[in-house]
Amino acid sequence: MIVAKFGGSSLADAAHFYMVKDILALEPRRRYVVVSAPGKRSDTDQKITDLLLTCHNKAQRGASFDAEFALVTERYQDIARELEIDDHIIDSELMEVKSALQTGASISYVASRGEYLCAKLFAKWMNLPFVDAKDIVRFDSLGKLNQAATLRLIKEALKKHRQAVIPGFYGADEEGNICTFTRGGSDVSGALVAAAMDADLYENWTDVTGFRSADPRIIEDASYISSLTYRELRELSYMGASVMHEEAVFPVRNAGIPTSIRNTANPHHPGTLIVHSLRQIGKLPAVTGIAGKRGFTTIILEKMKMNDEIGFGRKVLSVLEKHRVNFEHLPTGIDALCVMVNTDTLNSKREVIMEEIEDAVHPDAISVQEGIALVACVGAGLFKLHGTIARLFTAVAEQGITIRTMFQAPSELSIIIGVDEHHLEAAIKAIYDAFIRE
Amino acid sequence: MIVAKFGGSSLADAAHFYMVKDILALEPRRRYVVVSAPGKRSDTDQKITDLLLTCHNKAQRGASFDAEFALVTERYQDIARELEIDDHIIDSELMEVKSALQTGASISYVASRGEYLCAKLFAKWMNLPFVDAKDIVRFDSLGKLNQAATLRLIKEALKKHRQAVIPGFYGADEEGNICTFTRGGSDVSGALVAAAMDADLYENWTDVTGFRSADPRIIEDASYISSLTYRELRELSYMGASVMHEEAVFPVRNAGIPTSIRNTANPHHPGTLIVHSLRQIGKLPAVTGIAGKRGFTTIILEKMKMNDEIGFGRKVLSVLEKHRVNFEHLPTGIDALCVMVNTDTLNSKREVIMEEIEDAVHPDAISVQEGIALVACVGAGLFKLHGTIARLFTAVAEQGITIRTMFQAPSELSIIIGVDEHHLEAAIKAIYDAFIRE
Repeated sequence: MIVAKFGGSSLADAAHFYMVKDILALEPRRRYVVVSAPGKRSDTDQKITDLLLTCHNKAQRGASFDAEFALVTERYQDIARELEIDDHIIDSELMEVKSALQTGASISYVASRGEYLCAKLFAKWMNLPFVDAKDIVRFDSLGKLNQAATLRLIKEALKKHRQAVIPGFYGADEEGNICTFTRGGSDVSGALVAAAMDADLYENWTDVTGFRSADPRIIEDASYISSLTYRELRELSYMGASVMHEEAVFPVRNAGIPTSIRNTANPHHPGTLIVHSLRQIGKLPAVTGIAGKRGFTTIILEKMKMNDEIGFGRKVLSVLEKHRVNFEHLPTGIDALCVMVNTDTLNSKREVIMEEIEDAVHPDAISVQEGIALVACVGAGLFKLHGTIARLFTAVAEQGITIRTMFQAPSELSIIIGVDEHHLEAAIKAIYDAFIRE
Repeated sequence: MIVAKFGGSSLADAAHFYMVKDILALEPRRRYVVVSAPGKRSDTDQKITDLLLTCHNKAQRGASFDAEFALVTERYQDIARELEIDDHIIDSELMEVKSALQTGASISYVASRGEYLCAKLFAKWMNLPFVDAKDIVRFDSLGKLNQAATLRLIKEALKKHRQAVIPGFYGADEEGNICTFTRGGSDVSGALVAAAMDADLYENWTDVTGFRSADPRIIEDASYISSLTYRELRELSYMGASVMHEEAVFPVRNAGIPTSIRNTANPHHPGTLIVHSLRQIGKLPAVTGIAGKRGFTTIILEKMKMNDEIGFGRKVLSVLEKHRVNFEHLPTGIDALCVMVNTDTLNSKREVIMEEIEDAVHPDAISVQEGIALVACVGAGLFKLHGTIARLFTAVAEQGITIRTMFQAPSELSIIIGVDEHHLEAAIKAIYDAFIRE
């Protein structure tokens, strides 16, 4: 059994509803469908959720939200008309939302109506049962997901239906107050349904053909990764690459369910399959993907024999903690401890942090290296295939790029190198050409 | 002007005294001579200092130390006779030591007599002024060197002499009580004299021809490094390579004085020159030296998004600090923080430390990797010459050696790789063959 989640762009208009219908027809195992709110039909279009949030904002301020609400109404009516659904159903639902807006409904309730109405419409059109997320996705009184209760409720509710349509993005607390995930949270809803129903596969239907092996802004024709592990996905996501809500990974990953990233507009492309272990598919690429990130600053501390000094590292990290600055990496050397942080988090605190570190550990020297970019090369085969690391450094060196720092943790599938920010693109290109380009 | 320090093996017998005399004659700038106590004449011989320490130990226990003292007396008398020095001088000095031993002299006083007598004898033979270290090397009441006072006293005393012989290893506190450095401390005495007199060069005459580019137990014919920086020396010494007392580096390094490691038995070999910056000699090798060390254990902590958790690293290091365990390195990854420690320091505390780390930061996973060896490749050119790092990894990969971890701090002249202990020798050989062997 497959749980298929369709994103906002996959349900932006009636034409897309037809595509989704075809996708479901192609594979009868696609039994539970989780939907987002209709997204943009073009670059200049507005998402339903954004329109609803504007309505809420205006209502709160006592301003008229008629114009935005008319756009919301029009979108749903257009879809209903083109799908030849009786639009009275939609009209009465919309009326209810409007009156809720006028009587001070919560932002979560209003924001959630995009998914709610979309799921209602789709279920009606497909003649499938609609199961409201407010009854099966449970939040606690602080607005935090109660995952155990949610999994139980989903299972109980859906076992009564061979097929069902469920709105994503929201749920409710014990009192029935609507709560939402962060934006893009329909991915999480879908993952929860897949985990609760012990799906064979969680399909995440989007407007992209899969997860790319490098940022297409740098490598225009970057290939799609046919399969990678959740671990690799996480390591690439850390550097900013993303096609799915980060929190969505946990429920399916923990349940051992593979996730498939698919393109609604190109349903015959296999997309990207994310699995627990590559043994599941018997493949071991040297480098699965490359991701890079600018904006790191390194505080470099030098002190002779610092490793003999009990508490040296702890004292340095305590200063950062006091100023609520996280370190990203701690490249060590001989008599040198470096703390890499996001330049943005350091900003105005830099001078005082430097002073306090000096007072705390009396280094022989303290300096700062700004403008560092990190490049992560991720691949389960990186350390299993001999010579891969050598090829990697050869590729970078041939471009005349100086490696400022590097580190690789024993448990990792990736190696991270630090280069000057202006070398980031060239480094990614060099590694891409050496390992991924065919 | 050159300050020349001669080690124990360089003054083990009269034949060596002649060698030292020739060395001084070869270069008239060698004006201040610092001497150790006579060392071993053969592998089975005993060092004078060891004999004196045995005498002290026996005297303290009320046992007879006649046999050992007779050996000390014999050594000095043999040297005096062969050098045709009136041995009455030595006899009266030895009598004084003996009576001091009988009346409860301090261990520092007794230990220092080896250098004292050696310097007396050498000065007498060479007809050079003898300057007692007790008057110019000042310790505080806690037995710690007072470097500022020492530099001042040396300068005052030696400016009265164009040439002088000074015993190494010891000095005295304000009250005149003899204090010593740790064993091998004559190197420190020599460095202090060089720094105080603003020498052009500090020569450290030993029984080795210089600092080798790799451990000769692994690379039998490891070449001698003709020149390296103090920084490189320190990075190689960290891994265990050593020809000079570690503390001896500071005074000359800080004063910007180069140090030369020379072989008394091979005075025409240029040995190894240690300089502040390679610009001083205009040379930039890719890899200057390689050093390796066994006995590391890595504690591997994995936790999703740990870098968002303020205090994660600090909490881990606090547990180690509580148990008085120093970390050597902190290789980080994405969602992974690893703590490398000396296996010996961890030993029996391992289980409790693991438990406390679990309680402190609740990692998703915690594991231990034992039997790790680190290999440091040190070279000021490592990061300046493009392609060097690539060659390094190629060399290691070609031997089928798996790299467990790696790190390089931005400020460093070295790159450190972690391999399984049984791969240590092969890794060093591979790197040596790739970079140093001609």
